[in-house]
Amino acid sequence: PGNIKAKAVEIAKKTKKIGKDDPRRITHSLKVALALTLVSLFYYFKPLYDGFGSSSMWAVLTVVVVFEFTVGATLYKCMNRGFATFLAGTLGVGANYLTSLLGEEGEPIALGFLVFILTATCTFSRFFPTIKARYEYGVLIFILTFSLVSVSGYRVDKIIELAHQRLSTIMLGAAICMIISIFVCPVWAGEDLHNLVANNIEKLASFLEGFGGEYFRVLEDGDSDMVTKKDKSFLQGYKTVLNTKTTEESWANFAWWEPGHGNFGFHHPWKLYLQIGVLTRKCAFHFEALSCYIHSDIQATPEFLRKIQEPCKKMSLESGKALKELSLAIKAMTHPFSADAHLANSKTAITDLKTSLEAASGETSTDLIKIIPAVTVA
Amino acid sequence: PGNIKAKAVEIAKKTKKIGKDDPRRITHSLKVALALTLVSLFYYFKPLYDGFGSSSMWAVLTVVVVFEFTVGATLYKCMNRGFATFLAGTLGVGANYLTSLLGEEGEPIALGFLVFILTATCTFSRFFPTIKARYEYGVLIFILTFSLVSVSGYRVDKIIELAHQRLSTIMLGAAICMIISIFVCPVWAGEDLHNLVANNIEKLASFLEGFGGEYFRVLEDGDSDMVTKKDKSFLQGYKTVLNTKTTEESWANFAWWEPGHGNFGFHHPWKLYLQIGVLTRKCAFHFEALSCYIHSDIQATPEFLRKIQEPCKKMSLESGKALKELSLAIKAMTHPFSADAHLANSKTAITDLKTSLEAASGETSTDLIKIIPAVTVA
Repeated sequence: PGNIKAKAVEIAKKTKKIGKDDPRRITHSLKVALALTLVSLFYYFKPLYDGFGSSSMWAVLTVVVVFEFTVGATLYKCMNRGFATFLAGTLGVGANYLTSLLGEEGEPIALGFLVFILTATCTFSRFFPTIKARYEYGVLIFILTFSLVSVSGYRVDKIIELAHQRLSTIMLGAAICMIISIFVCPVWAGEDLHNLVANNIEKLASFLEGFGGEYFRVLEDGDSDMVTKKDKSFLQGYKTVLNTKTTEESWANFAWWEPGHGNFGFHHPWKLYLQIGVLTRKCAFHFEALSCYIHSDIQATPEFLRKIQEPCKKMSLESGKALKELSLAIKAMTHPFSADAHLANSKTAITDLKTSLEAASGETSTDLIKIIPAVTVA
Repeated sequence: PGNIKAKAVEIAKKTKKIGKDDPRRITHSLKVALALTLVSLFYYFKPLYDGFGSSSMWAVLTVVVVFEFTVGATLYKCMNRGFATFLAGTLGVGANYLTSLLGEEGEPIALGFLVFILTATCTFSRFFPTIKARYEYGVLIFILTFSLVSVSGYRVDKIIELAHQRLSTIMLGAAICMIISIFVCPVWAGEDLHNLVANNIEKLASFLEGFGGEYFRVLEDGDSDMVTKKDKSFLQGYKTVLNTKTTEESWANFAWWEPGHGNFGFHHPWKLYLQIGVLTRKCAFHFEALSCYIHSDIQATPEFLRKIQEPCKKMSLESGKALKELSLAIKAMTHPFSADAHLANSKTAITDLKTSLEAASGETSTDLIKIIPAVTVA
């Protein structure tokens, strides 16, 4: 029993942490529950039940499957589901009509053949990158609806009645999902992407601002490792930047579906964020290599270090400040004018450094310079 | 019309490329089509249709939704769907029975309340990392089935009959999927993971083997950029290693579900592959930084370069060979004995280098040494 209690406490703690990390998760759960309860009650009350028939089950199914965390993802699934159902339904009815002309014996063979060909083609099409990113769910629903309709064995007039009911219930479910997801505490994939990219750059900036001091700390403290350990988190922050590629790409895909909101218009240039993301990650890769120097046993001689200390520190600090300005500019959606000043400072520091000596951290600035033009485009 | 023709040719070319890159995609498409056609015909023929009722639609639905590219993913979905449907069905019947005791008026309120609470809890639970990785689909199906059953408005005896039919059709669909996916040209997620990890290490090895020569090429050729450009692909290969984290993690999750096959037992230590993956990626980050030196304007003086050339080249070459041995050892699942020799060579080269001077590429070997222990564990 003590074991169970400990486990329960642990789960409670985890739950609290997950909720605290992103409170929108709690609102999301409540939103899904609200949508499903609304649809369920629609379904439960007899008057509506009689109107829609048992296909109102599709409304429940739609809500459960379609409601996603961000508005973009929900819209993506709703649109795909709606269009695919409509298209596949129409084709299915057509296929059913045509094959029925072949008579009792030919019909199942022809239908089976059609289902086989269409399924194979559609499944294969899911491997195309563009289709995978934007229409994968639609292709799935297309296969599903087509095979359901075409082999249902009903006559055409019955099918049309069924298809009409099913489509309207799906649209009812989808509409409820879209309304709740857009108007009740919306979570925009685009906004998340925007913040992620800006925060990533800020993390890099903190690293750079701190790196100079950290690297030359050995010089100042000698070997005493008694420095306060409290403020080292900035040196680790960049690590989360290394693996954000997949997240960025899926958010950019979802953001494509979102209507204009706040400062973002419909079809905001989301792809540019991906480009910034690539450059940011490249920068982070370099930092990963740089941070090794801090813990490395291979240390240059103190005299050499003292020589390069001043320009190196300045370069690192100013580059960091420039990146921070960029991050702020992205957040405020303005042009990063003040970053230029820091960048110029950083460049003079580099020339200083070059004149004194070539140092291990020389490439920090070269890729910083690479990053600037892309960011100013946004 | 010329435009359409050009587009058609382009699509045909793309199709061919996607099929050629991985021919298993074609077999996969055919397998899905086969499974769906089989189930559809089951559904179409009257005798079976009369037996299962219209809920045999669920067999078609199951096949479309459940059949995935790898065996592991298919099993994951089948298992989750089966268990979740069973559990939610049982609970739903129970909820229906209990709330029916509350009378005409209390029933819809109590049911709506129950659906709301359960949906909110389940949706929130999907944010837990462990549940997300292994049971997310099951939770979705659980919510779906529970709300369908509990608000269906039927009486308990009718529900049990329906649930029985539905469960058996789902199991029929899932069984067909599992049989086809395991016995017809199976695609094992575990095997893919194994090969991915081994190939990634091999790519790093090729980079290292070539890097030494490339870096000091400037020395030998002077500034003549007329070198043959044909064999530079090894310098780019490591780039694909940088972003394989998500793929590795999902494959490891799917591999967890797979039964033993070939050299892999059931519950093979897939997690160790992830650890190797992390180290491999760390290595690749360093290479990304290193490769900058090749294109960098900041070049050391030729005299300095000449001094360090010999040990640096040797170190890079031997480290590369050691990595290649490791990759081969993983592929053959043996202990990498011969790698030790190369590693020793590389280490002597490092001491040689240290005695001559500290060089920019000094850290290549330090992280190589880090990688060895983890790989030998596997």
